[in-house]
Amino acid sequence: MRNQRGEMENSYDSMGSKSKDVSLKDLSIRLAEFAQVRGWDEYHSPRNLLLALVGEVGELSEIFQWKGEVGKGLPNWSADEKEHLEDELSDVLLYLVRLADVCGLDLGQAALTKMIKNARKYPVVVMNQKSKSTYN
Amino acid sequence: MRNQRGEMENSYDSMGSKSKDVSLKDLSIRLAEFAQVRGWDEYHSPRNLLLALVGEVGELSEIFQWKGEVGKGLPNWSADEKEHLEDELSDVLLYLVRLADVCGLDLGQAALTKMIKNARKYPVVVMNQKSKSTYN
Amino acid sequence: MRNQRGEMENSYDSMGSKSKDVSLKDLSIRLAEFAQVRGWDEYHSPRNLLLALVGEVGELSEIFQWKGEVGKGLPNWSADEKEHLEDELSDVLLYLVRLADVCGLDLGQAALTKMIKNARKYPVVVMNQKSKSTYN
Amino acid sequence: MRNQRGEMENSYDSMGSKSKDVSLKDLSIRLAEFAQVRGWDEYHSPRNLLLALVGEVGELSEIFQWKGEVGKGLPNWSADEKEHLEDELSDVLLYLVRLADVCGLDLGQAALTKMIKNARKYPVVVMNQKSKSTYN
Repeated sequence: MRNQRGEMENSYDSMGSKSKDVSLKDLSIRLAEFAQVRGWDEYHSPRNLLLALVGEVGELSEIFQWKGEVGKGLPNWSADEKEHLEDELSDVLLYLVRLADVCGLDLGQAALTKMIKNARKYPVVVMNQKSKSTYN
Repeated sequence: MRNQRGEMENSYDSMGSKSKDVSLKDLSIRLAEFAQVRGWDEYHSPRNLLLALVGEVGELSEIFQWKGEVGKGLPNWSADEKEHLEDELSDVLLYLVRLADVCGLDLGQAALTKMIKNARKYPVVVMNQKSKSTYN
Repeated sequence: MRNQRGEMENSYDSMGSKSKDVSLKDLSIRLAEFAQVRGWDEYHSPRNLLLALVGEVGELSEIFQWKGEVGKGLPNWSADEKEHLEDELSDVLLYLVRLADVCGLDLGQAALTKMIKNARKYPVVVMNQKSKSTYN
Repeated sequence: MRNQRGEMENSYDSMGSKSKDVSLKDLSIRLAEFAQVRGWDEYHSPRNLLLALVGEVGELSEIFQWKGEVGKGLPNWSADEKEHLEDELSDVLLYLVRLADVCGLDLGQAALTKMIKNARKYPVVVMNQKSKSTYN
């Protein structure tokens, strides 16, 4: 095995610069490498990863469970709470990306395709002058 | 009433060309626009979106529920089954991206940060010649 | 196979009289019989049932997803909405009971044991006169 | 400050005797009392409890996530693993029972009604001699 910790972290640090946009393909490749060098491939079956995803959705839900309704932008949340939420949202994302990958599917393309389907299913209704004026 | 469907689909079609990598920021921006032009913003509170995400994770699980163990690459799945799976993986992703956005968080950066944390938490063990030979 | 539809429904109808309390053991036995006479036993592995449970939790969440905060007793919900909710709560319960059963576990006893643990973990705080008066 | 722990545990201990069947109504009443004496009622809104339920389903899934297929009766699981599973199954049950209660619904009756619906939806197929003989 060639990979060592320091080397990988360097590559992550360069990746983490604020200016760069993060692609699903990039995440997928890095997660595959991450699992491979740790000998985790045998555990990364579709249903194992799906249950791991469900586990992370549970942790995400726990953050919100006793809060009642939460406003957009998370008013009054501490920096620690926001970081915790970022971690759990990320865990869900990472298992989702990994699940798609071991299934042999292109999640990014699938998401674009689904957005086209959604646009057809829920067409934008453009009100004419008359009906608009009802709200003026 | 008329709808702008054709116009929007053009923009999605250009986005959906096979050569392009899909970024989380791009998805986030398009989902925000998608909700805004449909008047859905008032429904997109964090907990509403979280429950919608849980709903989609449920639909994802239903695909796998009676299958027993599933091999990598989904051997013997039909094209229709794979497309259904792509749709449900996408629905989870789209709600996740939207949830992060209405919380004011940068999901892509959060995912990279989480991968760095994970790399520190689970360092790659580099075996020396001796321990390696145990498995030869 | 002896069982026929009419026969089973009679037994359910007698079970469904409003005065009777419903026990977890009773549900477990009836669900085992239900699966057995339909030849479903081979599908009822622990992880299959767990994913089916997750699927039902998803359907339960969908009922609540666009509603914003919901008051106790479900004010302003229609009879149909309440029946739909009863169905989904039941589906979660039935898969949970079945999952415990195929794992060889006694869910009712487990629940009582867990309540004892919870009572120890979260002891009731009885305020004395002085601290009570803080809130008067 | 003192707590009434001993007193409550006595009531649970009598409840926990192995011979007694556990009813959903009984659990519901005890959970309502449990919340009430701890001043938790204000937190037990339907959506808070639903998200707490999702959190527990996540913990349940984590137990199964890296195991691959699991046989009925949990062969080779340790006593500790089984107890952990009993705890998580119970947590899901307790939040489900509590959720139904704050919604003003009778979960036991709902479950019986759903089983009748399921029996109608999936009638038992009684094979005649001829079709049976196909498998002989």
